[in-house]
Amino acid sequence: MKLICAQNELTAHLSLVSRAVPSRPSHPVLANVLLRADEETQRVSLTGFDLSLGVQTSFSAQVESGGTLTLPAKLLSDIVSRLPDGEITLATEAGDMTATLTCAFGRYQVRGMGAEEYPELPTIDDGDVAYLPVESLIEGLRGSLFSTSADETKQVLTGVHLTVEYDSLEFAATDGHRLAVVQTVSAEPESGESSAPAVANGKKTTDTENARVEFDVTVPSKALRELERMLQVNQDTGAISKRYPRGVAVHFDQGQLTFEWANQRLTSRLLEGQYPNYRQLIPRQFSRQMTVERRLFVGALERIAVLADQKNSIVKLEMSNAQQELVLSVDAADVGSGRESVAAQISGEDLEIAFNVKYLLEGLKALNTNEIQMQFNTSTSPSIVTPLGGTKMTYLVMPVQIRS
Amino acid sequence: MKLICAQNELTAHLSLVSRAVPSRPSHPVLANVLLRADEETQRVSLTGFDLSLGVQTSFSAQVESGGTLTLPAKLLSDIVSRLPDGEITLATEAGDMTATLTCAFGRYQVRGMGAEEYPELPTIDDGDVAYLPVESLIEGLRGSLFSTSADETKQVLTGVHLTVEYDSLEFAATDGHRLAVVQTVSAEPESGESSAPAVANGKKTTDTENARVEFDVTVPSKALRELERMLQVNQDTGAISKRYPRGVAVHFDQGQLTFEWANQRLTSRLLEGQYPNYRQLIPRQFSRQMTVERRLFVGALERIAVLADQKNSIVKLEMSNAQQELVLSVDAADVGSGRESVAAQISGEDLEIAFNVKYLLEGLKALNTNEIQMQFNTSTSPSIVTPLGGTKMTYLVMPVQIRS
Repeated sequence: MKLICAQNELTAHLSLVSRAVPSRPSHPVLANVLLRADEETQRVSLTGFDLSLGVQTSFSAQVESGGTLTLPAKLLSDIVSRLPDGEITLATEAGDMTATLTCAFGRYQVRGMGAEEYPELPTIDDGDVAYLPVESLIEGLRGSLFSTSADETKQVLTGVHLTVEYDSLEFAATDGHRLAVVQTVSAEPESGESSAPAVANGKKTTDTENARVEFDVTVPSKALRELERMLQVNQDTGAISKRYPRGVAVHFDQGQLTFEWANQRLTSRLLEGQYPNYRQLIPRQFSRQMTVERRLFVGALERIAVLADQKNSIVKLEMSNAQQELVLSVDAADVGSGRESVAAQISGEDLEIAFNVKYLLEGLKALNTNEIQMQFNTSTSPSIVTPLGGTKMTYLVMPVQIRS
Repeated sequence: MKLICAQNELTAHLSLVSRAVPSRPSHPVLANVLLRADEETQRVSLTGFDLSLGVQTSFSAQVESGGTLTLPAKLLSDIVSRLPDGEITLATEAGDMTATLTCAFGRYQVRGMGAEEYPELPTIDDGDVAYLPVESLIEGLRGSLFSTSADETKQVLTGVHLTVEYDSLEFAATDGHRLAVVQTVSAEPESGESSAPAVANGKKTTDTENARVEFDVTVPSKALRELERMLQVNQDTGAISKRYPRGVAVHFDQGQLTFEWANQRLTSRLLEGQYPNYRQLIPRQFSRQMTVERRLFVGALERIAVLADQKNSIVKLEMSNAQQELVLSVDAADVGSGRESVAAQISGEDLEIAFNVKYLLEGLKALNTNEIQMQFNTSTSPSIVTPLGGTKMTYLVMPVQIRS
């Protein structure tokens, strides 16, 4: 194998796949990145894989002779990123597992392992495919990922539940205390691509008349965080929208999902198990409603949180219809107390209700509109937060019971 | 006590003194910051103290009634820094330990403790005083602090040894493996201020003819890091140079030292024990010498360090007089190897010598000239690095013995 490429390109692509390389690999070869140089296409592909999440990316290079090899991901990345801007030559001798990197200043040799020991990334050839607009994907991930559970024993709750229908795309995440649901617009599926076999881990409905593909899966949050990061980078550079106007292709079959766009591919196992029927948790009617400027609400909550965090993290909200005012207060016995008021449009009777300040703050920060609406029934029933305009998002949060 | 001040001013000064507040205080009141409001001077002073390092700072405010109180440093800082820009009122009721902060949006109450429980910062009334230029202090600290030992059992080696003479100021730090010595220019002492009693923890010579003050002390690195940080902030805003053209006043007596400038004061206990006679460690003559561009040398060492850190941290330098070239190499068995060459002006016979790459890098990064000079005798005797022009600094580093 012998290839010549730009230092900054190799650095950028190594940094992408390195995120999928496990820090404590179950097998030594998984600490490596798989390099594949193709003489015919004059491209180099890199792969990182922790057996659950896999990332593959490719870039063009001057490939003098093709070949494959795995090299320690962190070491290679650390050296290459410190090399000066310019051309790098990466070469191996036949039958030798050592790669030689040559640049203007010097020469580095790094010991690798054979590519035959590296596991294949799962590929999905006969599963279903859907195309999701990049903007919708980013919007949905941003509005849901923060609500997943960080507790590994919570199984499906550690992932985001993704429901793809003919004309919509729904993201849902809940950790048992709050629930975030984002609905965005899907892209039209290719006709003829909907006749694939049923999806085992999820349900699929094929409406033969309209050739609709419908599926729902639960994807680990780690993989989706990487997806969000990679899409964001691509979106910032405008790379996808131009070259892939149809968006990101999502292939899925039993237990596996891949996202593919431009020259990149992210693959993830799916989470097994029944996702909670979250739609039934969202009340259909509310007796009270408040509209408030998001920035002011967040600012007040952040100050209140300093004191709330000292004790039980509880913030009390008092809504006064007569004053058209929201009063936030915290009482951390032995430490201190605080009280702020924010102008709000309030309808319905006055209400006192308490929340975990962290859940309120995280939800409000995930929204990106100037104003938000909050709806309530009683001080013990779930409330929902929705943005006014912008993304179609519903954030449900359970109140905390307080002694009056 | 009642005072009105600007939110950004209170935030900035709280952040300064908070650095001296211990995270695990030996007594609860030390987790607090001492507030003193003076109606006569219309100033507020803040103090943080961990019984070794103390920081005091003051700023002008509208003091309606004077008083003292201690308040939880972190909590107060966290709340105040999140308050909106503008005026803050801080008030206490007589006989009550609770402070009420009022701003445009709301009101916070924070429980404090009486000022009488807070220990007094050490003051030095009848010790010696010297004036040190701010630029010299920063230069000396920057060039020495990194060489102190982080190992608490190493006692005096955890500090910087400061020698103040009539016309010079010397900073020295060593952890036993390397030694940094910086000489800068001192300011003239006030006449008449040199007749104070002898310094117990250090030596002092009073030359009656020229009224010279000479002293040497060892100051904990933690205090000096804070000093460097505070001076840097002051220097950046030009605060000291304008108002205190004579520089920073250093008062010292038995076991204690204070730095005073503008409206700030930093006090530190001194480290007890004899500091090593480091001057005798620096060879007077060298048989070999190399001049090299610092940036290129650092760049090559940083790449070499990636591989060296995998093994024993050793980098080998080979100086070739014929080629006028420095070759750096690393051999990390089973992992990889590297080799770079850098153009250099070399005099004396060829030499192979090895160093801990970390010690070389840290020394080279502390210098700020384009070119540096490195001098050697043999592969087993100490080498020194000096900047070409700029600060008068000597960095001595011991080579590592390698099997050839």
